[in-house]
Amino acid sequence: MTMITSPDNEKLKTIRKLARTRERERTGLFAAEGEDLVEAAERAGAETEFVLVAGEDVEPELLDRVSSLGSGTRAIGVYRQAWSEPGGDISLYLHGVGDPGNVGTAIRAAHALCDGPVVLGPGCADPYSPKAVRASMGSIFARPPARAEAGDLPGSLLALDGAAEQTIEQIELEPPVVVCVGAEREGLPAEVLHAAAAAARIPINEDGPDSLNAAMAATVALHVARHRIPE
Amino acid sequence: MTMITSPDNEKLKTIRKLARTRERERTGLFAAEGEDLVEAAERAGAETEFVLVAGEDVEPELLDRVSSLGSGTRAIGVYRQAWSEPGGDISLYLHGVGDPGNVGTAIRAAHALCDGPVVLGPGCADPYSPKAVRASMGSIFARPPARAEAGDLPGSLLALDGAAEQTIEQIELEPPVVVCVGAEREGLPAEVLHAAAAAARIPINEDGPDSLNAAMAATVALHVARHRIPE
Repeated sequence: MTMITSPDNEKLKTIRKLARTRERERTGLFAAEGEDLVEAAERAGAETEFVLVAGEDVEPELLDRVSSLGSGTRAIGVYRQAWSEPGGDISLYLHGVGDPGNVGTAIRAAHALCDGPVVLGPGCADPYSPKAVRASMGSIFARPPARAEAGDLPGSLLALDGAAEQTIEQIELEPPVVVCVGAEREGLPAEVLHAAAAAARIPINEDGPDSLNAAMAATVALHVARHRIPE
Repeated sequence: MTMITSPDNEKLKTIRKLARTRERERTGLFAAEGEDLVEAAERAGAETEFVLVAGEDVEPELLDRVSSLGSGTRAIGVYRQAWSEPGGDISLYLHGVGDPGNVGTAIRAAHALCDGPVVLGPGCADPYSPKAVRASMGSIFARPPARAEAGDLPGSLLALDGAAEQTIEQIELEPPVVVCVGAEREGLPAEVLHAAAAAARIPINEDGPDSLNAAMAATVALHVARHRIPE
Protein backbone atom coordinates (compact mmCIF):
# COMPACT_ATOMS: atom_id res chain seq x y z
CA MET A 1 0.00 0.00 0.00
CA THR A 2 1.31 3.43 -0.84
CA MET A 3 1.48 6.07 1.84
CA ILE A 4 -1.54 8.34 2.04
CA THR A 5 -0.39 11.90 1.46
CA SER A 6 -3.66 13.68 0.63
CA PRO A 7 -6.27 14.88 3.13
CA ASP A 8 -8.88 14.04 0.50
CA ASN A 9 -8.14 10.33 0.76
CA GLU A 10 -11.36 8.32 1.12
CA LYS A 11 -10.25 6.50 4.29
CA LEU A 12 -9.38 9.75 6.03
CA LYS A 13 -12.74 11.15 4.97
CA THR A 14 -14.48 8.08 6.39
CA ILE A 15 -12.76 8.52 9.77
CA ARG A 16 -13.67 12.21 9.85
CA LYS A 17 -17.32 11.49 9.05
CA LEU A 18 -17.56 8.78 11.72
CA ALA A 19 -17.18 11.44 14.41
CA ARG A 20 -20.85 12.19 13.65
CA THR A 21 -23.62 10.12 15.25
CA ARG A 22 -25.68 10.07 12.07
CA GLU A 23 -22.83 8.70 10.00
CA ARG A 24 -22.20 5.94 12.55
CA GLU A 25 -25.89 5.04 12.44
CA ARG A 26 -26.02 5.12 8.66
CA THR A 27 -22.97 2.92 8.13
CA GLY A 28 -22.90 0.77 11.26
CA LEU A 29 -19.18 1.58 11.52
CA PHE A 30 -17.09 3.42 14.08
CA ALA A 31 -13.50 4.58 14.54
CA ALA A 32 -11.14 3.73 17.39
CA GLU A 33 -8.08 5.87 18.01
CA GLY A 34 -4.77 4.82 19.50
CA GLU A 35 -2.52 1.78 19.34
CA ASP A 36 -3.95 0.24 22.51
CA LEU A 37 -7.48 0.27 21.10
CA VAL A 38 -6.34 -1.05 17.72
CA GLU A 39 -4.59 -3.90 19.57
CA ALA A 40 -7.70 -4.56 21.66
CA ALA A 41 -9.72 -4.81 18.45
CA GLU A 42 -7.26 -7.34 17.03
CA ARG A 43 -7.29 -9.44 20.19
CA ALA A 44 -11.09 -9.47 20.18
CA GLY A 45 -11.24 -10.37 16.49
CA ALA A 46 -13.30 -7.28 15.66
CA GLU A 47 -14.65 -6.96 12.11
CA THR A 48 -12.13 -4.52 10.69
CA GLU A 49 -12.68 -2.22 7.72
CA PHE A 50 -9.15 -0.79 7.78
CA VAL A 51 -6.40 0.42 10.11
CA LEU A 52 -4.13 3.38 9.39
CA VAL A 53 -0.79 3.57 11.18
CA ALA A 54 1.04 6.90 11.23
CA GLY A 55 4.27 6.84 9.20
CA GLU A 56 3.40 3.49 7.64
CA ASP A 57 0.06 3.97 5.92
CA VAL A 58 -0.43 7.69 6.24
CA GLU A 59 1.53 10.86 6.93
CA PRO A 60 1.38 11.45 10.70
CA GLU A 61 0.05 15.02 10.37
CA LEU A 62 -2.85 13.83 8.24
CA LEU A 63 -3.83 11.20 10.81
CA ASP A 64 -3.62 13.77 13.61
CA ARG A 65 -5.95 16.03 11.68
CA VAL A 66 -8.77 13.45 11.58
CA SER A 67 -8.39 12.54 15.27
CA SER A 68 -11.50 13.39 17.27
CA LEU A 69 -9.71 13.21 20.59
CA GLY A 70 -7.55 16.28 20.13
CA SER A 71 -4.06 15.05 20.79
CA GLY A 72 -2.07 13.21 18.15
CA THR A 73 -2.59 9.54 17.58
CA ARG A 74 -0.35 6.82 16.14
CA ALA A 75 -3.12 4.62 14.74
CA ILE A 76 -6.82 4.74 13.90
CA GLY A 77 -8.94 1.76 12.95
CA VAL A 78 -12.43 1.61 11.49
CA TYR A 79 -14.61 -1.30 12.60
CA ARG A 80 -18.12 -2.65 12.28
CA GLN A 81 -20.27 -2.02 15.38
CA ALA A 82 -21.14 -5.21 17.25
CA TRP A 83 -24.13 -5.70 19.55
CA SER A 84 -24.69 -8.42 22.15
CA GLU A 85 -27.85 -9.99 23.45
CA PRO A 86 -28.73 -9.23 27.10
CA GLY A 87 -27.87 -12.04 29.51
CA GLY A 88 -25.51 -13.36 32.15
CA ASP A 89 -25.77 -13.85 35.90
CA ILE A 90 -24.71 -10.26 36.54
CA SER A 91 -25.27 -7.52 34.00
CA LEU A 92 -25.77 -3.76 33.94
CA TYR A 93 -28.64 -1.74 32.49
CA LEU A 94 -28.18 2.00 31.89
CA HIS A 95 -31.14 4.34 31.40
CA GLY A 96 -30.69 7.95 30.27
CA VAL A 97 -26.94 7.99 30.89
CA GLY A 98 -26.13 10.65 28.35
CA ASP A 99 -22.44 11.20 29.02
CA PRO A 100 -20.33 9.13 26.60
CA GLY A 101 -17.44 8.94 29.07
CA ASN A 102 -19.74 7.38 31.65
CA VAL A 103 -21.12 4.89 29.13
CA GLY A 104 -17.60 3.86 28.07
CA THR A 105 -16.41 3.57 31.67
CA ALA A 106 -19.45 1.46 32.54
CA ILE A 107 -18.64 -0.88 29.62
CA ARG A 108 -15.13 -1.29 31.02
CA ALA A 109 -16.45 -1.89 34.54
CA ALA A 110 -18.94 -4.50 33.30
CA HIS A 111 -16.20 -6.26 31.36
CA ALA A 112 -14.21 -6.43 34.62
CA LEU A 113 -17.03 -7.42 36.94
CA CYS A 114 -19.98 -8.96 35.04
CA ASP A 115 -20.49 -12.01 32.89
CA GLY A 116 -23.16 -10.21 30.85
CA PRO A 117 -22.99 -7.09 28.69
CA VAL A 118 -24.00 -3.53 29.40
CA VAL A 119 -27.56 -3.06 28.21
CA LEU A 120 -28.34 0.43 26.94
CA GLY A 121 -31.88 1.68 27.43
CA PRO A 122 -33.44 4.90 26.13
CA GLY A 123 -31.49 8.15 26.35
CA CYS A 124 -28.00 6.69 26.64
CA ALA A 125 -25.01 8.13 24.81
CA ASP A 126 -23.83 6.24 21.74
CA PRO A 127 -21.30 3.65 23.00
CA TYR A 128 -19.52 3.90 19.65
CA SER A 129 -18.82 7.63 19.88
CA PRO A 130 -15.10 8.50 20.07
CA LYS A 131 -15.25 9.46 23.78
CA ALA A 132 -17.17 6.33 24.81
CA VAL A 133 -14.84 4.06 22.84
CA ARG A 134 -11.83 5.73 24.43
CA ALA A 135 -13.28 5.45 27.96
CA SER A 136 -14.06 1.76 27.41
CA MET A 137 -10.31 1.18 26.95
CA GLY A 138 -10.94 -1.65 24.50
CA SER A 139 -13.71 -3.35 26.46
CA ILE A 140 -16.15 -2.23 23.75
CA PHE A 141 -14.47 -4.82 21.49
CA ALA A 142 -14.23 -7.61 24.05
CA ARG A 143 -17.77 -7.19 25.38
CA PRO A 144 -20.04 -5.30 22.96
CA PRO A 145 -23.08 -3.65 24.54
CA ALA A 146 -26.72 -4.68 24.07
CA ARG A 147 -29.81 -2.54 23.48
CA ALA A 148 -33.13 -3.22 25.20
CA GLU A 149 -35.82 -1.78 27.40
CA ALA A 150 -35.68 -2.69 31.09
CA GLY A 151 -39.04 -4.48 30.94
CA ASP A 152 -37.72 -6.92 28.32
CA LEU A 153 -34.69 -8.05 30.32
CA PRO A 154 -34.37 -11.57 31.71
CA GLY A 155 -33.58 -11.81 35.43
CA SER A 156 -34.33 -9.69 38.50
CA LEU A 157 -33.83 -5.98 38.10
CA LEU A 158 -32.03 -4.29 40.98
CA ALA A 159 -32.71 -0.55 40.75
CA LEU A 160 -30.06 1.75 42.20
CA ASP A 161 -32.06 4.53 43.81
CA GLY A 162 -30.68 7.09 46.24
CA ALA A 163 -34.08 7.24 47.98
CA ALA A 164 -34.31 3.48 48.60
CA GLU A 165 -34.58 2.31 52.20
CA GLN A 166 -32.20 -0.60 51.95
CA THR A 167 -28.55 -0.45 50.99
CA ILE A 168 -27.04 -2.74 48.37
CA GLU A 169 -25.41 -4.70 51.19
CA GLN A 170 -28.78 -5.36 52.79
CA ILE A 171 -30.90 -6.75 49.99
CA GLU A 172 -31.05 -10.34 48.83
CA LEU A 173 -29.47 -11.10 45.49
CA GLU A 174 -30.36 -14.14 43.43
CA PRO A 175 -28.89 -14.49 39.96
CA PRO A 176 -29.53 -13.49 37.28
CA VAL A 177 -29.32 -9.90 38.53
CA VAL A 178 -29.48 -6.83 36.31
CA VAL A 179 -28.14 -3.75 38.11
CA CYS A 180 -30.09 -0.72 36.81
CA VAL A 181 -28.54 2.76 36.88
CA GLY A 182 -30.23 5.99 35.77
CA ALA A 183 -29.14 9.50 34.89
CA GLU A 184 -27.22 11.35 37.59
CA ARG A 185 -29.84 13.90 38.50
CA GLU A 186 -33.10 12.30 37.40
CA GLY A 187 -32.28 8.76 38.49
CA LEU A 188 -34.33 5.91 37.08
CA PRO A 189 -37.79 6.60 35.60
CA ALA A 190 -40.93 5.22 37.24
CA GLU A 191 -41.37 2.40 34.71
CA VAL A 192 -37.95 0.95 35.54
CA LEU A 193 -38.54 1.32 39.29
CA HIS A 194 -41.85 -0.51 38.87
CA ALA A 195 -40.31 -3.29 36.81
CA ALA A 196 -37.55 -3.78 39.39
CA ALA A 197 -37.60 -6.68 41.86
CA ALA A 198 -35.79 -4.53 44.43
CA ALA A 199 -34.40 -1.05 44.92
CA ALA A 200 -31.27 -0.23 46.87
CA ARG A 201 -28.98 2.69 47.53
CA ILE A 202 -25.24 3.03 47.94
CA PRO A 203 -24.74 4.72 51.32
CA ILE A 204 -22.99 8.06 51.02
CA ASN A 205 -22.18 10.89 53.44
CA GLU A 206 -25.06 13.16 54.34
CA ASP A 207 -22.86 16.20 53.88
CA GLY A 208 -21.44 14.74 50.68
CA PRO A 209 -22.41 15.27 47.06
CA ASP A 210 -25.97 14.50 45.89
CA SER A 211 -24.81 11.24 44.35
CA LEU A 212 -21.92 9.30 42.91
CA ASN A 213 -21.52 9.62 39.18
CA ALA A 214 -23.40 7.00 37.15
CA ALA A 215 -20.33 4.95 36.21
CA MET A 216 -19.01 4.96 39.78
CA ALA A 217 -22.35 3.92 41.23
CA ALA A 218 -22.58 1.12 38.66
CA THR A 219 -19.08 -0.10 39.46
CA VAL A 220 -19.69 -0.22 43.21
CA ALA A 221 -22.99 -2.08 42.75
CA LEU A 222 -21.44 -4.58 40.33
CA HIS A 223 -18.58 -5.22 42.73
CA VAL A 224 -21.01 -5.88 45.58
CA ALA A 225 -23.18 -8.14 43.40
CA ARG A 226 -20.12 -10.04 42.19
CA HIS A 227 -18.87 -10.48 45.75
CA ARG A 228 -22.22 -11.71 47.01
CA ILE A 229 -23.09 -14.00 44.10
CA PRO A 230 -20.17 -16.43 44.03
CA GLU A 231 -19.63 -18.33 40.79
CA MET B 1 -21.22 47.02 37.50
CA THR B 2 -21.37 47.75 33.83
CA MET B 3 -21.64 44.91 31.38
CA ILE B 4 -18.32 43.65 30.02
CA THR B 5 -18.35 44.09 26.27
CA SER B 6 -14.65 43.85 25.42
CA PRO B 7 -12.63 40.63 25.10
CA ASP B 8 -9.67 42.59 26.49
CA ASN B 9 -11.35 42.96 29.86
CA GLU B 10 -8.98 42.03 32.70
CA LYS B 11 -11.34 39.51 34.28
CA LEU B 12 -11.82 37.67 31.01
CA LYS B 13 -8.06 37.67 30.54
CA THR B 14 -7.61 36.22 34.01
CA ILE B 15 -10.02 33.37 33.28
CA ARG B 16 -8.28 32.62 30.00
CA LYS B 17 -4.86 32.55 31.64
CA LEU B 18 -6.03 30.24 34.43
CA ALA B 19 -6.47 27.45 31.89
CA ARG B 20 -2.66 27.17 32.13
CA THR B 21 -1.06 25.15 34.94
CA ARG B 22 1.71 27.69 35.42
CA GLU B 23 -0.71 30.57 35.87
CA ARG B 24 -2.67 28.59 38.47
CA GLU B 25 0.57 27.85 40.33
CA ARG B 26 1.75 31.47 40.12
CA THR B 27 -1.50 33.00 41.37
CA GLY B 28 -2.99 30.25 43.57
CA LEU B 29 -6.29 30.88 41.79
CA PHE B 30 -8.48 28.73 39.56
CA ALA B 31 -11.64 29.06 37.49
CA ALA B 32 -14.84 27.03 37.79
CA GLU B 33 -17.31 26.94 34.91
CA GLY B 34 -21.05 26.49 35.07
CA GLU B 35 -23.85 27.56 37.37
CA ASP B 36 -23.81 24.34 39.40
CA LEU B 37 -20.14 24.79 40.26
CA VAL B 38 -20.59 28.48 41.08
CA GLU B 39 -23.43 27.49 43.42
CA ALA B 40 -21.29 24.77 45.00
CA ALA B 41 -18.59 27.37 45.64
CA GLU B 42 -21.12 29.65 47.34
CA ARG B 43 -22.49 26.83 49.50
CA ALA B 44 -18.98 25.90 50.59
CA GLY B 45 -18.04 29.53 51.31
CA ALA B 46 -15.12 29.43 48.88
CA GLU B 47 -12.80 32.44 48.77
CA THR B 48 -14.14 34.17 45.67
CA GLU B 49 -12.22 36.61 43.49
CA PHE B 50 -15.16 37.28 41.15
CA VAL B 51 -18.05 35.60 39.34
CA LEU B 52 -19.21 36.51 35.85
CA VAL B 53 -22.76 35.63 34.82
CA ALA B 54 -23.64 35.66 31.12
CA GLY B 55 -26.09 38.43 30.21
CA GLU B 56 -25.68 40.11 33.60
CA ASP B 57 -21.98 40.85 33.97
CA VAL B 58 -20.70 39.97 30.54
CA GLU B 59 -21.91 39.43 27.00
CA PRO B 60 -22.66 35.71 26.65
CA GLU B 61 -20.45 35.28 23.56
CA LEU B 62 -17.46 36.72 25.41
CA LEU B 63 -17.93 34.30 28.31
CA ASP B 64 -18.24 31.38 25.91
CA ARG B 65 -14.97 32.38 24.31
CA VAL B 66 -12.99 32.06 27.54
CA SER B 67 -14.59 28.74 28.49
CA SER B 68 -12.02 25.92 28.62
CA LEU B 69 -14.63 23.21 28.44
CA GLY B 70 -15.71 23.82 24.88
CA SER B 71 -19.43 24.23 25.11
CA GLY B 72 -21.03 27.47 26.23
CA THR B 73 -21.35 28.34 29.87
CA ARG B 74 -23.71 30.61 31.82
CA ALA B 75 -21.32 31.52 34.62
CA ILE B 76 -17.63 31.36 35.47
CA GLY B 77 -16.14 32.07 38.88
CA VAL B 78 -12.54 32.61 39.91
CA TYR B 79 -11.55 31.33 43.35
CA ARG B 80 -8.53 30.90 45.57
CA GLN B 81 -7.26 27.31 45.72
CA ALA B 82 -7.76 25.66 49.09
CA TRP B 83 -5.76 22.75 50.50
CA SER B 84 -6.65 20.44 53.37
CA GLU B 85 -4.46 18.56 55.81
CA PRO B 86 -4.47 14.76 55.49
CA GLY B 87 -6.63 12.99 58.07
CA GLY B 88 -9.90 11.22 58.79
CA ASP B 89 -10.79 7.61 59.51
CA ILE B 90 -11.06 6.83 55.80
CA SER B 91 -9.16 8.80 53.21
CA LEU B 92 -7.73 8.29 49.75
CA TYR B 93 -4.16 8.71 48.51
CA LEU B 94 -3.49 8.97 44.77
CA HIS B 95 -0.02 8.41 43.31
CA GLY B 96 0.79 9.19 39.68
CA VAL B 97 -2.85 9.54 38.64
CA GLY B 98 -2.22 11.87 35.73
CA ASP B 99 -5.69 12.10 34.24
CA PRO B 100 -7.51 15.21 35.53
CA GLY B 101 -10.92 13.58 35.03
CA ASN B 102 -9.89 10.70 37.28
CA VAL B 103 -8.54 13.07 39.93
CA GLY B 104 -11.77 15.10 39.91
CA THR B 105 -13.94 11.98 40.02
CA ALA B 106 -11.90 10.63 42.93
CA ILE B 107 -12.43 13.91 44.80
CA ARG B 108 -16.17 13.51 44.31
CA ALA B 109 -16.07 9.86 45.44
CA ALA B 110 -14.09 10.74 48.55
CA HIS B 111 -16.55 13.49 49.41
CA ALA B 112 -19.32 10.88 49.16
CA LEU B 113 -17.59 8.05 51.01
CA CYS B 114 -14.72 9.33 53.20
CA ASP B 115 -14.41 11.62 56.17
CA GLY B 116 -10.94 12.68 55.08
CA PRO B 117 -9.72 14.42 51.93
CA VAL B 118 -8.07 13.07 48.82
CA VAL B 119 -4.31 13.26 49.29
CA LEU B 120 -2.36 13.86 46.09
CA GLY B 121 1.10 12.35 45.89
CA PRO B 122 3.71 12.83 43.16
CA GLY B 123 2.66 12.72 39.52
CA CYS B 124 -1.02 13.50 39.97
CA ALA B 125 -2.92 15.86 37.69
CA ASP B 126 -3.65 19.33 39.03
CA PRO B 127 -7.00 19.06 40.89
CA TYR B 128 -7.66 22.70 40.02
CA SER B 129 -7.42 22.21 36.24
CA PRO B 130 -10.70 22.87 34.39
CA LYS B 131 -11.34 19.16 33.69
CA ALA B 132 -10.65 18.06 37.25
CA VAL B 133 -12.83 20.81 38.72
CA ARG B 134 -15.66 19.84 36.36
CA ALA B 135 -15.35 16.11 37.18
CA SER B 136 -15.40 16.89 40.92
CA MET B 137 -18.90 18.36 40.44
CA GLY B 138 -18.36 20.87 43.21
CA SER B 139 -16.75 18.49 45.70
CA ILE B 140 -13.46 20.34 45.16
CA PHE B 141 -15.04 23.22 47.09
CA ALA B 142 -16.66 21.16 49.82
CA ARG B 143 -13.66 18.94 50.45
CA PRO B 144 -10.41 20.48 49.15
CA PRO B 145 -7.60 17.99 48.48
CA ALA B 146 -4.36 17.64 50.41
CA ARG B 147 -0.80 17.16 49.18
CA ALA B 148 1.63 14.76 50.82
CA GLU B 149 3.91 11.78 50.27
CA ALA B 150 2.54 8.39 51.28
CA GLY B 151 5.26 7.90 53.93
CA ASP B 152 4.13 11.02 55.78
CA LEU B 153 0.49 10.01 56.12
CA PRO B 154 -1.09 9.17 59.48
CA GLY B 155 -2.93 5.82 59.68
CA SER B 156 -2.54 2.45 57.97
CA LEU B 157 -1.95 2.53 54.27
CA LEU B 158 -4.00 0.02 52.28
CA ALA B 159 -2.36 -0.38 48.87
CA LEU B 160 -4.64 -1.37 45.99
CA ASP B 161 -2.52 -3.76 43.97
CA GLY B 162 -3.82 -6.01 41.22
CA ALA B 163 -1.13 -8.57 42.09
CA ALA B 164 -2.02 -8.79 45.80
CA GLU B 165 -3.04 -12.17 47.14
CA GLN B 166 -5.93 -10.99 49.30
CA THR B 167 -9.01 -9.18 48.10
CA ILE B 168 -10.26 -6.00 49.77
CA GLU B 169 -13.05 -8.06 51.33
CA GLN B 170 -10.52 -10.39 52.97
CA ILE B 171 -8.12 -8.06 54.75
CA GLU B 172 -8.58 -6.57 58.18
CA LEU B 173 -9.33 -2.87 58.32
CA GLU B 174 -8.71 -0.76 61.40
CA PRO B 175 -9.23 2.99 61.15
CA PRO B 176 -7.62 5.29 60.26
CA VAL B 177 -7.25 3.72 56.80
CA VAL B 178 -5.71 5.44 53.80
CA VAL B 179 -6.68 3.69 50.56
CA CYS B 180 -3.76 4.08 48.13
CA VAL B 181 -4.33 3.99 44.37
CA GLY B 182 -1.65 4.26 41.69
CA ALA B 183 -1.53 4.95 37.97
CA GLU B 184 -3.58 2.63 35.80
CA ARG B 185 -0.75 0.78 34.12
CA GLU B 186 2.19 1.22 36.48
CA GLY B 187 0.22 0.79 39.70
CA LEU B 188 1.78 1.98 42.94
CA PRO B 189 5.56 2.45 43.15
CA ALA B 190 7.70 0.23 45.39
CA GLU B 191 8.09 2.89 48.11
CA VAL B 192 4.33 3.12 48.62
CA LEU B 193 3.92 -0.68 48.60
CA HIS B 194 6.67 -0.90 51.24
CA ALA B 195 5.11 1.79 53.38
CA ALA B 196 1.69 0.08 53.23
CA ALA B 197 0.33 -1.95 56.13
CA ALA B 198 -1.52 -4.21 53.70
CA ALA B 199 -2.07 -4.75 50.00
CA ALA B 200 -5.30 -5.93 48.45
CA ARG B 201 -6.87 -6.34 45.06
CA ILE B 202 -10.37 -5.82 43.71
CA PRO B 203 -11.32 -9.14 42.11
CA ILE B 204 -12.01 -8.80 38.40
CA ASN B 205 -12.74 -11.26 35.59
CA GLU B 206 -9.73 -13.13 34.25
CA ASP B 207 -10.86 -12.48 30.71
CA GLY B 208 -11.67 -8.87 31.57
CA PRO B 209 -9.64 -5.69 31.15
CA ASP B 210 -6.22 -5.38 32.81
CA SER B 211 -7.72 -3.22 35.55
CA LEU B 212 -10.49 -0.87 36.54
CA ASN B 213 -9.74 2.78 35.97
CA ALA B 214 -8.11 4.55 38.90
CA ALA B 215 -11.21 6.47 39.99
CA MET B 216 -13.44 3.38 39.77
CA ALA B 217 -10.99 1.27 41.75
CA ALA B 218 -10.75 3.99 44.40
CA THR B 219 -14.53 4.25 44.64
CA VAL B 220 -15.03 0.51 45.10
CA ALA B 221 -12.31 0.34 47.75
CA LEU B 222 -13.71 3.34 49.63
CA HIS B 223 -17.20 1.84 49.57
CA VAL B 224 -15.89 -1.44 51.00
CA ALA B 225 -13.84 0.38 53.66
CA ARG B 226 -16.82 2.54 54.61
CA HIS B 227 -19.06 -0.50 54.86
CA ARG B 228 -16.62 -2.44 57.01
CA ILE B 229 -15.58 0.42 59.32
CA PRO B 230 -18.89 1.49 60.85
CA GLU B 231 -18.94 4.97 62.37
